[in-house]
Amino acid sequence: MKALHFLLALALSGSVWSQTTDYTELSDGRPKPAASAWQKAAEKPLFVWGDIDTRYEKFALPGKQTGALLHLYAWRGENVNAQAVLYTARPLSHITVRAEDGLPETAHTTAFVRYVITDEFAGGCGHRPDHSKFDSLLVADVLDERQTMDVEACTARPVWLRIQVPADTRPGTYKGTLTLQAEEGVSMKLPYRLHVADRTLPAPTQWKFHLDLWQNPYSVARFYNVPLWSQAHFDRMRPIMERLAAAGQKVITTTVMQYPWNGQTEDPFESMVTRIRRLDGTWTYDYAVFDRWVEFMLSLGIDKQINCYTMVPWALKFDYFDQASNTMKYVHAKPGDPAYEAYWLPFLTDFARHLKNKGWFERTAIAMDERAMDQMREAFALIHKADPDYKISGAAHYYPEVEPRMYDLCLAYGERLPDEVLARRQKEGKITTVYTCCTEAYPNLFTFSAPAEAAWLPWHALAGGYDGYLRWAYNSWTARPLQDTRFRTWPAGDCFLYYPGGSSIRLERLIEGVQDAEKVRLLREEFTRKGNQKKLQQLERIVSDFMPQNLHGPNATAMVNKAREALRKLSE
Amino acid sequence: MKALHFLLALALSGSVWSQTTDYTELSDGRPKPAASAWQKAAEKPLFVWGDIDTRYEKFALPGKQTGALLHLYAWRGENVNAQAVLYTARPLSHITVRAEDGLPETAHTTAFVRYVITDEFAGGCGHRPDHSKFDSLLVADVLDERQTMDVEACTARPVWLRIQVPADTRPGTYKGTLTLQAEEGVSMKLPYRLHVADRTLPAPTQWKFHLDLWQNPYSVARFYNVPLWSQAHFDRMRPIMERLAAAGQKVITTTVMQYPWNGQTEDPFESMVTRIRRLDGTWTYDYAVFDRWVEFMLSLGIDKQINCYTMVPWALKFDYFDQASNTMKYVHAKPGDPAYEAYWLPFLTDFARHLKNKGWFERTAIAMDERAMDQMREAFALIHKADPDYKISGAAHYYPEVEPRMYDLCLAYGERLPDEVLARRQKEGKITTVYTCCTEAYPNLFTFSAPAEAAWLPWHALAGGYDGYLRWAYNSWTARPLQDTRFRTWPAGDCFLYYPGGSSIRLERLIEGVQDAEKVRLLREEFTRKGNQKKLQQLERIVSDFMPQNLHGPNATAMVNKAREALRKLSE
Repeated sequence: MKALHFLLALALSGSVWSQTTDYTELSDGRPKPAASAWQKAAEKPLFVWGDIDTRYEKFALPGKQTGALLHLYAWRGENVNAQAVLYTARPLSHITVRAEDGLPETAHTTAFVRYVITDEFAGGCGHRPDHSKFDSLLVADVLDERQTMDVEACTARPVWLRIQVPADTRPGTYKGTLTLQAEEGVSMKLPYRLHVADRTLPAPTQWKFHLDLWQNPYSVARFYNVPLWSQAHFDRMRPIMERLAAAGQKVITTTVMQYPWNGQTEDPFESMVTRIRRLDGTWTYDYAVFDRWVEFMLSLGIDKQINCYTMVPWALKFDYFDQASNTMKYVHAKPGDPAYEAYWLPFLTDFARHLKNKGWFERTAIAMDERAMDQMREAFALIHKADPDYKISGAAHYYPEVEPRMYDLCLAYGERLPDEVLARRQKEGKITTVYTCCTEAYPNLFTFSAPAEAAWLPWHALAGGYDGYLRWAYNSWTARPLQDTRFRTWPAGDCFLYYPGGSSIRLERLIEGVQDAEKVRLLREEFTRKGNQKKLQQLERIVSDFMPQNLHGPNATAMVNKAREALRKLSE
Repeated sequence: MKALHFLLALALSGSVWSQTTDYTELSDGRPKPAASAWQKAAEKPLFVWGDIDTRYEKFALPGKQTGALLHLYAWRGENVNAQAVLYTARPLSHITVRAEDGLPETAHTTAFVRYVITDEFAGGCGHRPDHSKFDSLLVADVLDERQTMDVEACTARPVWLRIQVPADTRPGTYKGTLTLQAEEGVSMKLPYRLHVADRTLPAPTQWKFHLDLWQNPYSVARFYNVPLWSQAHFDRMRPIMERLAAAGQKVITTTVMQYPWNGQTEDPFESMVTRIRRLDGTWTYDYAVFDRWVEFMLSLGIDKQINCYTMVPWALKFDYFDQASNTMKYVHAKPGDPAYEAYWLPFLTDFARHLKNKGWFERTAIAMDERAMDQMREAFALIHKADPDYKISGAAHYYPEVEPRMYDLCLAYGERLPDEVLARRQKEGKITTVYTCCTEAYPNLFTFSAPAEAAWLPWHALAGGYDGYLRWAYNSWTARPLQDTRFRTWPAGDCFLYYPGGSSIRLERLIEGVQDAEKVRLLREEFTRKGNQKKLQQLERIVSDFMPQNLHGPNATAMVNKAREALRKLSE
């Protein structure tokens, strides 16, 4: 499937999108089955259960169908997923999907699974100025939560069902029906059984798994063409960040200077701090943007940590508004330079004062990622010169020289701390997490990744003794994220897990993995409390399977399903 | 002399210039006399009096020499000029020039007249992207006040003598000597007589002639590579603006928005007002830059008027620092638009408050130039909505609809107000002036203009009943002003009258004209007071000659010299 280059016949004018209007999915260059084959396979529309491990192809004929009755297993409070697929040889209009099983109506979310262009891992990191040199495939990933849509002739249209089982649900088995209807008089039903266990998963705010997916408010303002930090902007961000909160996100991504990552994303991160160098050389700081963003995120329950990027950016230039010239200006300096200290020390001092006034100082960390040890050491010394109680967060290699200063240390996939260091960190209440990025072909969260890899990752965090998982991009959208997930750098999908208007298969499977991690934690606590060594050992055996050497490309799905099944049995 | 294109062998690296180092003058492509001709004409260096009406050519052989004794006539307090020329067939080193006549040493300023590239009037206004399509000539204009310089073989080097006669000088005739020396043992003397009349010209701050040459602080910061509004910047500006004050300048040029002239100069005018749109939509203004600049100019005695550019710029975009996005942003709106009022009304209100606090409100005018009547009308209404006592200043056509609102109205050369309007304005204490710009081939202040045209202009203002003269550029320097006065637009020299390191022939002759205007004013008052109708009529006859129809290209020099001679006789 190499080099299937195609013309981007973009149907969206500009990049402004409205939830009320549909958009045209792109297509790749692969041959499609003839209409006659579709007539034969799905003369009458078919609606069948699929599984959540498969990205069903848009133009492929119906394949092997799973059992007509789907069984779903959930704890109270858990979020469970199912996928069904509609196949039709003729166009259908105004399709609607509805689930009924005795749980409140609000417990169900249905979404149309939609198709986006992806590429391939190829070399992983690096620039991809010429997309024609990479594969280009149309894949199912978007979970479009619109109420209704039309379906073209001779296509598959998967439907995603998400059930958020209320915490007060009575344990037992619920008989459910997923109904699909279309204007053409089509009405098809799929049965399911929802088995609710007598166990409760607490609300995401109570989860201990340290999930850190970085938010990009600037993408949202651009995509919806709303003024930055306006009410309209926050209105657009609310559903996006609510789903992040539902995933158990612990960290608010903030910026305290312009372009912490040198503008590497489609929408660069501006500074949330107003920093003015007055004519007399003194600094004035204002935190109105920072405060409003943090307060918004806190109100959604994302309230454990505030990460402030960054004092060691990828390009060592630091913005300020220069009153003398009435322009934005930049200090070019590196940690250790007098000019660096002159820029940062007054800020850090004032910022600590502000954070303490707000009652946020204890949960705030000055954050950086993938920087050299000597630069971090110099920066950390300056941070603690400003206030010895500042927390520091960073995605970094393990450097014994600086590790003790880092409250929140995130290691690259496969990198381990010495056992005694990890144990000390746990004892000190410090956070240690793991991340994947453009480096890992798998497990990962690209739009071509197997969906189960998303669920695999939190299991891996458990197995490695990490406190959680970090990914650098929750919603750094591409120019047309709903149609094309490819970017000028990195494998497609690297930049975001949430789409305008809905979640993704990847994010929902990641949430599943986080829920599994919480279940493991709760069962561990219970078995330990009860002294049930046998079950404890069984549990640890399930977990310990998820180390890197046990994962090969294709087997994430089998590993996750096996572990989930074993976990379910263990928790009965 | 058309299309004498030459290679710009620029000797300056970058555009940073130091007063302590010399620079290389460029040359044009004209043929030069042979060295043998120079040997014949000036085997021994010649030092002779010239006149102040001539731009002596650098490579021309000595011509007709004026009398060996020069007579200078001055009132007490007046500034008088003389020019001598050194011709030499051989190089001379470390030339120095000194004048002695019994007046204090500080009364004398000597300068080396230096050569710059000019072009020609051609069509006047408009872009000149390709200088090769215009004449390019080396002309004498710069008055370089350095203490010493070297002189090349086979060149002329004019020397300018400026005597600022102290106001307490005893009337009478002073015998003077201008001495030129060189390291090669050369020492030459030129005699002069300074005749000081028993009349006193008051200090420039007391002059009534409304001179308005717009200042550009941004050029100075760029040329000397000093931080904007730093002490170093003000130190560099001091001699430049002191000479402007000595010319009787009445107006401080300030900017209250970015790029009032759409960045048409080499160094665009930034805003002197800090204007922040806060996250909550409110405005914050800060006047630190404005205040410092105004206070500096006031301290030099330029204290009559503060002109604030502009509410009707050449490009209708208005800057602000946007806290939300941490960037400079622009409002695009025209007078009369709600967005225009939303931008300007809060500012005008706050600015009036600030100006009143400073005690400057009465002398401040919101200024604009060359704008359409309907835009001015809308802007004026808004200004007076903010505060009915705001003064308004503008270079504009005479529009009866808006004229009454204009405290300071400047008309284009040749444009007259109806007599009754001019009379009413005078009665109301309003200012009416005249300007030249790229439109007038003569009289004007280009580097190819006859020097006497500069002196002609204030005489013209008198003749037309105007209160003064305006020119749009005192020091909007070109990239290399000391070498090349041509610019990408307009005839060469249009952009500045003062050079880094010294004045110009044009500015000094303009000052002479302003002094003449003051003399006329004083004599008028005296003759009126004394009821001396005969002298009054003689005086008015001298003045009335300076109407446009009486000026043809070559006769400005004769006209000015005749008028000055007549004025001298009338004031005896």
